Amino acid sequence: MTAAPAPLPVAGERHREADLHAFCTAALRAAGAEPETAEAASRAMLHGSRIGVDSHGVRLLDHYVAVIEGGRVNARPALRFTDGAAAVSSLDADHAHGARAAYAAMDRAMEKAALYGMGAVAIRNSSHFGAAGAYALQAAEKGFIGLAFCNSDSFVRLHGGAERFHGTNPIAMGVPVEGEDPWLLDMATSAIPYNRVLLYRSLECALPAEVASNQEGHDTTDPHAVDMLAPLGGAFGFKGAALAGVVEIFSAVLTGARLSFDIAPMGGPDFATPRNVGAFVMALTPGAFLDETDFNAAMTRYRQTLRASRPAPGDRVMAPGDREWLVAEQRRREGIPIDPATAQAFDRLAARYGLPRPKPVAG
Amino acid sequence: MTAAPAPLPVAGERHREADLHAFCTAALRAAGAEPETAEAASRAMLHGSRIGVDSHGVRLLDHYVAVIEGGRVNARPALRFTDGAAAVSSLDADHAHGARAAYAAMDRAMEKAALYGMGAVAIRNSSHFGAAGAYALQAAEKGFIGLAFCNSDSFVRLHGGAERFHGTNPIAMGVPVEGEDPWLLDMATSAIPYNRVLLYRSLECALPAEVASNQEGHDTTDPHAVDMLAPLGGAFGFKGAALAGVVEIFSAVLTGARLSFDIAPMGGPDFATPRNVGAFVMALTPGAFLDETDFNAAMTRYRQTLRASRPAPGDRVMAPGDREWLVAEQRRREGIPIDPATAQAFDRLAARYGLPRPKPVAG
Repeated sequence: MTAAPAPLPVAGERHREADLHAFCTAALRAAGAEPETAEAASRAMLHGSRIGVDSHGVRLLDHYVAVIEGGRVNARPALRFTDGAAAVSSLDADHAHGARAAYAAMDRAMEKAALYGMGAVAIRNSSHFGAAGAYALQAAEKGFIGLAFCNSDSFVRLHGGAERFHGTNPIAMGVPVEGEDPWLLDMATSAIPYNRVLLYRSLECALPAEVASNQEGHDTTDPHAVDMLAPLGGAFGFKGAALAGVVEIFSAVLTGARLSFDIAPMGGPDFATPRNVGAFVMALTPGAFLDETDFNAAMTRYRQTLRASRPAPGDRVMAPGDREWLVAEQRRREGIPIDPATAQAFDRLAARYGLPRPKPVAG
Repeated sequence: MTAAPAPLPVAGERHREADLHAFCTAALRAAGAEPETAEAASRAMLHGSRIGVDSHGVRLLDHYVAVIEGGRVNARPALRFTDGAAAVSSLDADHAHGARAAYAAMDRAMEKAALYGMGAVAIRNSSHFGAAGAYALQAAEKGFIGLAFCNSDSFVRLHGGAERFHGTNPIAMGVPVEGEDPWLLDMATSAIPYNRVLLYRSLECALPAEVASNQEGHDTTDPHAVDMLAPLGGAFGFKGAALAGVVEIFSAVLTGARLSFDIAPMGGPDFATPRNVGAFVMALTPGAFLDETDFNAAMTRYRQTLRASRPAPGDRVMAPGDREWLVAEQRRREGIPIDPATAQAFDRLAARYGLPRPKPVAG
């Protein structure tokens, strides 16, 4: 048992982060995106690729180009904030790329947190924003505790349920740790991510028990039979389903966005109609609650003690984010690997838009 | 597989809620508690007993009397709020009963939410507050979204860990639903509650897999061998451990309270020394984020659609809180059952303080 799932195995070419960032931005601009959108979407993708969340990394470039060209995502959105009260705001994202909306929303939540101790922004008329952790990290890097939620099209059954109901509805939280990488959580409330099913399918491996179901809602370990994911918790899946509900209430009920079961599939075939995905971000100022020195000392001690907690024989313990920072360090040295399908998409996009195709690092 | 664990089986006498409330208040007053403390502790216990969370119901009266008499809990605390910013506050609870502190903190969080859209209070120098759901419900009943967290003495290992690290660190959230009982979540971030272990011990039953460990951190299904609980999630326990971390950061790091692994055991033997347990409450005003009519419509539709989601054959789906409201309705009709040990404690407390012992309802 590992402390957390490893990044998906990716073989083949590896790239410098800056090169990938430049190519993503150029391709999105070529597809018609305004500069802010191209930058935000690239920043979010590189967050995923940097820390090993490859499902939400540059693999998404091809998809994001398609939804901008198709019109589902507004290439030139006019974001509109409405402050219903001093510490909170609602963002009508005008069908922006989700990253464009969420980075702007977290900036505003931090402004409010600096003034009032905390701030939150409810986002509607948005779209896929990549890894929720990107926005939690955005806050933590500025010294705030950041939280980010979003919903998505239905893919996870309820506990005892036999049809898709919630999205994979992630919970992300970032906490600053003085002089060190932040504490960073980014977890789906489903038992496993759907990408894990696809991986096991390609490897012809049996899934773990109680993580996915067939069309009748029966548990299955056959990755080819999977129609929906189980909520986190196995026999205690009512907890995972309830956590998905927490995310749904923040991201959809409180924002006026679509509920997960009303959202069109991310994968199309319709790439022209906006989906009205919702999201919710929150920032808290530690120094508004207690002396900042005390906060820093407690957070450092908490994480240090956690890392030193006695492991089971042959096992290890890690704090949320630790695996990601290790991957990031490795990728800084060795480059960011991309999978063959993404490499082919790069070829296509480079040819189509007449862009220089990023060159892999040597090795 | 049931949608949620049933209340612990309790046989024997049953009581009217008002009678239990009056007896709890009288016993706590007799033990020296000021009126506000006696009322708050009784209110929190009756919340647990009303909805079937018997582990946090009137069973706790005997314990609360002991900690007030012993001095661990301050019978006459001077609560001190400090507002570090407009929307947030810190409460030094002066070693109050946890319910006294948390009800007052949520009242203040709601005042702030009414003014600023949301409000939060970080609580330090507190003590066991019973079921976290009591304070989430307090907010939901007034039309706010309420969140409540607390930490406690260590009882849950980390993922891959072999020693007690986090408390059972609950997450509670209550959401108002127009004209109906609130949506109510109150879940420990451990795989199961410790009371479940004790129940299986008394029944000589094997535990489910992956919910508890022996002293070496190895999974065990033998309830007699259990030394610590596993985090929620089984093979994906890094998620449960991370959620416990979310609660720990809010309840202890951000409050200046003790970290779980520094808190003396709830069960004594020392009942004289304050434990400095932490908690955190937050309230959000739906109408500050979107039109209240739209919020109400979306929340109602969300829960109705959830309840109607297709169940697996022979199974059922429920929304968070649904089981509790069913139990509450049954107990309104039939009375609240108490277990034999609690009945004996009532006898002792009544004799000791010269109080009328509550009379069971007929049947």
